Amino acid sequence: MINVGIVGGTGYTGVELLRLLAQHPKVRIKTITSRGEAGLPVADLFTNLRGRIDLKFSDPGEAKLDKCDVVFFATPNGIAMQQTEALLQADVKVIDLAADFRIKDIAVWEKWYGMQHACPHLVAEAVYGLPEINREQVKQARLIANPGCYPTAVQLGFLPLIEAGIVDLDHLIADTKSGVSGAGRKAEVHTLHAEASDNFKAYGVPGHRHLPEISQGLANVAGKSIGLTFVPHLVPMIRGIHATLYARLTQTVDLQALYEKRYQDEAFVDVLPAGKHPETRSVRGSNLCRIAVHQPQNGDIAVILSVTDNLVKGAAGQAIQNMNILFGLPETMGINQIPLLP
Amino acid sequence: MINVGIVGGTGYTGVELLRLLAQHPKVRIKTITSRGEAGLPVADLFTNLRGRIDLKFSDPGEAKLDKCDVVFFATPNGIAMQQTEALLQADVKVIDLAADFRIKDIAVWEKWYGMQHACPHLVAEAVYGLPEINREQVKQARLIANPGCYPTAVQLGFLPLIEAGIVDLDHLIADTKSGVSGAGRKAEVHTLHAEASDNFKAYGVPGHRHLPEISQGLANVAGKSIGLTFVPHLVPMIRGIHATLYARLTQTVDLQALYEKRYQDEAFVDVLPAGKHPETRSVRGSNLCRIAVHQPQNGDIAVILSVTDNLVKGAAGQAIQNMNILFGLPETMGINQIPLLP
Amino acid sequence: MINVGIVGGTGYTGVELLRLLAQHPKVRIKTITSRGEAGLPVADLFTNLRGRIDLKFSDPGEAKLDKCDVVFFATPNGIAMQQTEALLQADVKVIDLAADFRIKDIAVWEKWYGMQHACPHLVAEAVYGLPEINREQVKQARLIANPGCYPTAVQLGFLPLIEAGIVDLDHLIADTKSGVSGAGRKAEVHTLHAEASDNFKAYGVPGHRHLPEISQGLANVAGKSIGLTFVPHLVPMIRGIHATLYARLTQTVDLQALYEKRYQDEAFVDVLPAGKHPETRSVRGSNLCRIAVHQPQNGDIAVILSVTDNLVKGAAGQAIQNMNILFGLPETMGINQIPLLP
Amino acid sequence: MINVGIVGGTGYTGVELLRLLAQHPKVRIKTITSRGEAGLPVADLFTNLRGRIDLKFSDPGEAKLDKCDVVFFATPNGIAMQQTEALLQADVKVIDLAADFRIKDIAVWEKWYGMQHACPHLVAEAVYGLPEINREQVKQARLIANPGCYPTAVQLGFLPLIEAGIVDLDHLIADTKSGVSGAGRKAEVHTLHAEASDNFKAYGVPGHRHLPEISQGLANVAGKSIGLTFVPHLVPMIRGIHATLYARLTQTVDLQALYEKRYQDEAFVDVLPAGKHPETRSVRGSNLCRIAVHQPQNGDIAVILSVTDNLVKGAAGQAIQNMNILFGLPETMGINQIPLLP
Repeated sequence: MINVGIVGGTGYTGVELLRLLAQHPKVRIKTITSRGEAGLPVADLFTNLRGRIDLKFSDPGEAKLDKCDVVFFATPNGIAMQQTEALLQADVKVIDLAADFRIKDIAVWEKWYGMQHACPHLVAEAVYGLPEINREQVKQARLIANPGCYPTAVQLGFLPLIEAGIVDLDHLIADTKSGVSGAGRKAEVHTLHAEASDNFKAYGVPGHRHLPEISQGLANVAGKSIGLTFVPHLVPMIRGIHATLYARLTQTVDLQALYEKRYQDEAFVDVLPAGKHPETRSVRGSNLCRIAVHQPQNGDIAVILSVTDNLVKGAAGQAIQNMNILFGLPETMGINQIPLLP
Repeated sequence: MINVGIVGGTGYTGVELLRLLAQHPKVRIKTITSRGEAGLPVADLFTNLRGRIDLKFSDPGEAKLDKCDVVFFATPNGIAMQQTEALLQADVKVIDLAADFRIKDIAVWEKWYGMQHACPHLVAEAVYGLPEINREQVKQARLIANPGCYPTAVQLGFLPLIEAGIVDLDHLIADTKSGVSGAGRKAEVHTLHAEASDNFKAYGVPGHRHLPEISQGLANVAGKSIGLTFVPHLVPMIRGIHATLYARLTQTVDLQALYEKRYQDEAFVDVLPAGKHPETRSVRGSNLCRIAVHQPQNGDIAVILSVTDNLVKGAAGQAIQNMNILFGLPETMGINQIPLLP
Repeated sequence: MINVGIVGGTGYTGVELLRLLAQHPKVRIKTITSRGEAGLPVADLFTNLRGRIDLKFSDPGEAKLDKCDVVFFATPNGIAMQQTEALLQADVKVIDLAADFRIKDIAVWEKWYGMQHACPHLVAEAVYGLPEINREQVKQARLIANPGCYPTAVQLGFLPLIEAGIVDLDHLIADTKSGVSGAGRKAEVHTLHAEASDNFKAYGVPGHRHLPEISQGLANVAGKSIGLTFVPHLVPMIRGIHATLYARLTQTVDLQALYEKRYQDEAFVDVLPAGKHPETRSVRGSNLCRIAVHQPQNGDIAVILSVTDNLVKGAAGQAIQNMNILFGLPETMGINQIPLLP
Repeated sequence: MINVGIVGGTGYTGVELLRLLAQHPKVRIKTITSRGEAGLPVADLFTNLRGRIDLKFSDPGEAKLDKCDVVFFATPNGIAMQQTEALLQADVKVIDLAADFRIKDIAVWEKWYGMQHACPHLVAEAVYGLPEINREQVKQARLIANPGCYPTAVQLGFLPLIEAGIVDLDHLIADTKSGVSGAGRKAEVHTLHAEASDNFKAYGVPGHRHLPEISQGLANVAGKSIGLTFVPHLVPMIRGIHATLYARLTQTVDLQALYEKRYQDEAFVDVLPAGKHPETRSVRGSNLCRIAVHQPQNGDIAVILSVTDNLVKGAAGQAIQNMNILFGLPETMGINQIPLLP
């Protein structure tokens, strides 16, 4: 059994980690910390866990994280970077669901995240945990930077086009849409039900933190810098990411075949038949990414539709997928639930 | 392995049966029929099942239901009663998720359902599949009448009060609320998103088919007829039943202790601590019924709050719970998923 | 023209007052205050008002409220009671949309609202502004206590029954449901979209502040104390109250005729034809209360369905209705919009 | 007073026409037809109109449309083209809210709409009723082709860029999102609440009827053909269009100033301050189009955000705006309601 610790379990990625880990046959959840809720039974906060998780939130100072085999950080940005080094020295694997280790260029990270990085030397070591790209590196990693929700859907969507070298890399467009849980379980006015429901809007058009993360990932694949316009929107739904991706084709290619071939061995990427449109509910509660490929009017614009559940493949599920890889378990273990529809 | 057939799998109870049965370790789904969709891969209709269910819908005439161990009817009312006798004679167990076998009084059934009953003699034999009341009878049954969604939540809520004989049985009130999936996957104007969302209304106040079903069940427990006012409402959500139950207490009792004791051995009924309010999302996608007990201002009115997922404990999940009991399997097998929250 | 001041305009009752008053032909909005947002253009906060309201929020200390003809308090409880006396002395009418002047029994108020009342002597003078009951007193008032949202829908629903003296007054039941805007525009976790949407729950069953307000109102009509069980629920919609009311009839009466007669001259109360069910969207954005009357199975339980828009008839619209009465204007002036459907 | 007839008033554009026309000071609604609902009081179908519209639906054969000053067609595509000629000969103005007269190229129309055009000669005469482009022609028109919902938001968004001649016209991208009411009030499975809520998807990527309409409009402005990728999505909300538009800039221009100048005299187009993001609820129930202009990272991609209410500026409101222009009334008369927020 893998002994697991969770730091910062009061947000949506926390409860989702708990839901999935509690059903994982090879995991024992040893501790879950929360400064604000220490002493509170986890199931009092997240009533779906009643009868399934008996733990209380621990004070971070008292949780014996160094006795765990792996620690997940489901914390705000800037926390994991302060505790990771000690854990690694205690031979504990670390999977950070926040952004602390995602961006290799420290200056870029510090600009977008507005703080000084606490352990730049570990950033270089960290493996960006998108298994469909970095599976081999994940196997050897001590420290995983789990990708962001938008970056997962966008990169999986663009990946085959960029690997094939068949699109104008200077004018990629990612028009992305997220359910409100992507904003986290924070008391804020703009995500109240009375504000966010029956409404639709873009946000962050001048700049969003997932832009440099996606750009870095796509540039790594392309082998050179890329130009990306990234526009996120808020959808009045709870879960789900829908990325609508546009790229100008520079060559004639059978896109459907390209995508099917690229992902034929991936358990969590499903390429839909030609002409279909994925919907976010078709992956609700699951670790799947479903993708459809279009070339409207046989023109030179490829339109890629990519959907995920932001809390699963976009966060907790992918983190467990990385854990499975790290510990040599079957990659789908514990995260193979069928999506909930309707 | 239990060989399972499903008749009428294109509705919400059908897709939910498929989601749960596909993850059940002792089940092999042999056939699923649909007159209208024969030949269509199931996963084309319900995209959450892509990669998990390879079956196509079969024409009812060609499906070899008599080779199954058990057949679930997820059909409109009036279908199961035409096919059940032949299946029973072929030694196939039948679990009807519709209403054909729920009401023992044939005249009452025919009045509320507006048709003549095709096999009244089987109604007497059928066991009403609410395991928390009829577990022993279910074990011996050939034919299970799976309860309706409202009746499950309402009966489990009232049950301890009535068994204890401590309330005015002539003036029970069930103010119930259902998500829109309760209306089924039928093309109708009143359940369109543009009609039903951001809206709330009662319906069926003059009379609803679940009234006689609940009245029969409560009367059986009480040992005499009861008086029930039943008012259903449509909630702009997908899944979930919330029953708010009112009864006038005729004796002083510790209600919290009464409920905890009654349900202490039930895997799927969770009595919340005193003072709490269950929410429908705390059971989303699960077979649970969560109940809270209140006595406002220490007056003589008991207020019971009971929530279920109408498609699981209110339909497909309870049907599988009955199947597990019928076949001597652990009652929670395959239906023990943790609710999806948020 | 009536010169109007608004204190505390950053909540939902504030923006709704502004929407309605900006379209009122006899009103000039002179000032709107907010301690937190002083200096901010109102239309920057509420973008629906762009081009229609040019005012900025004023600091409460600098707003010349005493130059207004009437001041609306759209503040949290406990604010109006501190400023009303000075305004009345300056000959300014006051309409409080909060609860400061609703409960005549100071001890009861202080118990439920958890603070000491700052001007108990004005409570006696204040007129409870439910025009359908107190229209004549409103005409003469200096100070109006505008009713709460639930109390408006519940009292209008029960009123004819109680006036007629035909129900058991000791066991009234009000099962009420509110859209999330009823919780106000406050940053709180439980009303986030990701928490409140696709979900349904009761709350405040042990006790809710609207219980004593409703009890007082109904007792006034009955001429004696009444017994009420009041259970509010949160509906995943933005606006709307639905009250489902239960009373045991002690006499045989034509309920439909009773209600139609009682409200025949009321511009804002619409009694639906027999057998109908009102829906909240049928009053969305309007000052209407629509009511339907049922007597299921011709039993002795009357079921009354009453819907309002909590922000209009339940708050801002009713406040303007009271203003119209106070100033001798046609009662429907400026608040006669047709509901927005769908 | 203008005597108005409405053909086909049982859909969402019909009820919205009624809501707005009933409040228009210069309009008398003479007749509203429906083959299916003839004889039914309009307010029985649309309960928001109770007490405000006393008409019953008329049989189309008996409605004296030729006595009206103007007839609105709120019908499915293909109806108006059969009746328009007779009305024009009777000197009745016609405003078609469907697509019969929008596309000048008959072959293109017949391909996308799958039927033969009944009166091609009137197509040439029809004026495309987007007042911000064609106001002068509307003044003289007998027959108005009221624009589609997506085309209104997209064309108003692209217009200043194209008039200024500063973008690559071959690779325009319109990523558009619509509330579910855009699909109409038709009983269909895919727009059920249980299907469409808590979900997001693209649709019609291979081709959507609004593509040729938008392309024609933009080509007219550009003076040459344009290349457009048009991807619509379904949003789980009732009303609202959000168009996210992408164009590659070929010159350096102050986009904010360009847009503000272009729309400075337009009553119904509101250009937001730099850096803002419009939201659909900020125009809910109103005839406004709100637009924001972005140039992320000062790159060469312009991102335009354009929102409307699909039933008002995208349908009924714009039709009345056209009527006002046709009859020499102030353009905002009767359609100047403040949006409903929250």
